[in-house]
Amino acid sequence: MQRIEVATPVLKKNDELALENRALFAARGVVAVNLMSAPGAGKTTLLEKTLPTLQLRFRCGVIEGDLQTDLDAERVRKTGAVAHQINTNACHLDARMVREAYDAAFAQAPELLFIENIGNLVCPAAYDLGEQWRVTLFSVAEGADKPRKYPKMFHNSHAVVLNKIDLLPYTDVRLEELIESVGAVSPEAAVFPVSCRTGDGLGAWIEWLEQQIARSRQTRASASAEGH
Amino acid sequence: MQRIEVATPVLKKNDELALENRALFAARGVVAVNLMSAPGAGKTTLLEKTLPTLQLRFRCGVIEGDLQTDLDAERVRKTGAVAHQINTNACHLDARMVREAYDAAFAQAPELLFIENIGNLVCPAAYDLGEQWRVTLFSVAEGADKPRKYPKMFHNSHAVVLNKIDLLPYTDVRLEELIESVGAVSPEAAVFPVSCRTGDGLGAWIEWLEQQIARSRQTRASASAEGH
Repeated sequence: MQRIEVATPVLKKNDELALENRALFAARGVVAVNLMSAPGAGKTTLLEKTLPTLQLRFRCGVIEGDLQTDLDAERVRKTGAVAHQINTNACHLDARMVREAYDAAFAQAPELLFIENIGNLVCPAAYDLGEQWRVTLFSVAEGADKPRKYPKMFHNSHAVVLNKIDLLPYTDVRLEELIESVGAVSPEAAVFPVSCRTGDGLGAWIEWLEQQIARSRQTRASASAEGH
Repeated sequence: MQRIEVATPVLKKNDELALENRALFAARGVVAVNLMSAPGAGKTTLLEKTLPTLQLRFRCGVIEGDLQTDLDAERVRKTGAVAHQINTNACHLDARMVREAYDAAFAQAPELLFIENIGNLVCPAAYDLGEQWRVTLFSVAEGADKPRKYPKMFHNSHAVVLNKIDLLPYTDVRLEELIESVGAVSPEAAVFPVSCRTGDGLGAWIEWLEQQIARSRQTRASASAEGH
């Protein structure tokens, strides 16, 4: 479905809508995070482990993308965050879907908005949703060669979370090799090895998110002080 | 990229080419298997473990689909099988790519042809390649709920191989629950729990393939005896 003759106008329209989303999020003080991964890497579990801590300090919201079922939104709501489910037959979320979900779900703007994309390490990389931060989650059990084999997804990401490090002793994957492979395609991404199962490494990831929110508030405060 | 207005003509053209591939494979006695999975479930490793046994009895060939790199074809060639790499920016293989690769690589028809699709649990389900058998490979570490969340891929499959069962004791996934979840969306699929790492379960999977080849030969023999 990436044959250029059909995809180009779709992508152009999407980019325009993404710009609108980005302006809206900036105006309302929403830090939006596009969370992408292959199926089963643990996106929803990461949110379940991340949101309870962040909810103590910030109003959090989640837009959940899935081909079918609303199991994920139900799981996320238990953390106290407002969660809105999108069911789509598409292999990725696009900016229009995100805007419609945002308008439907968030009467009060969340300070932190996670957009959980469709489980797919290919197509979502091509679709700007208007997010501020792109995060790729990856299960270490999927192999150290994958960042080089799916470079676009990793290359576009501001942060890469390497999940399931508790499984490392039972696989042939070496964490150093995987981190090196991420660095080869995305040298500037922040990398967080974590285990959502044991909680290992989650502190650094949550701190990174808090820093992005603090930075965004500072930017807004300076802009406002300058009379904007 | 599945917006109907653009995808429908592409799919229709693909279906026509897939029919041609199917006729070609039937005429040349090629049993073609479309092997699909999410990234890192172990498609290439499964081929590395499957082909040495099958090569003893059948001429085997592989068409390798990847976004980038030809690492997989190199790995597969070590088994003695003829392997041809396709590098494509698309999120799936289509019938045209398969036909071009087949024509380029196989002067002598293989009796068993594996087509290793792009690592993606969504898009490849929509594209008929002209294969005889569709096989979905799934890593048990990806979670028992995934067949219900990615139903099209599982629903379309004749066989489902559940890999990495050696990791089960270190995850919260129960094999029975996962098998039940496969059965719910694909009640007729043959299910093979395996570990490519330990070799567990590979015998049954290889036997299934041998049966399909034997059946195909029988069909050809009967057709030829009837004077076709």
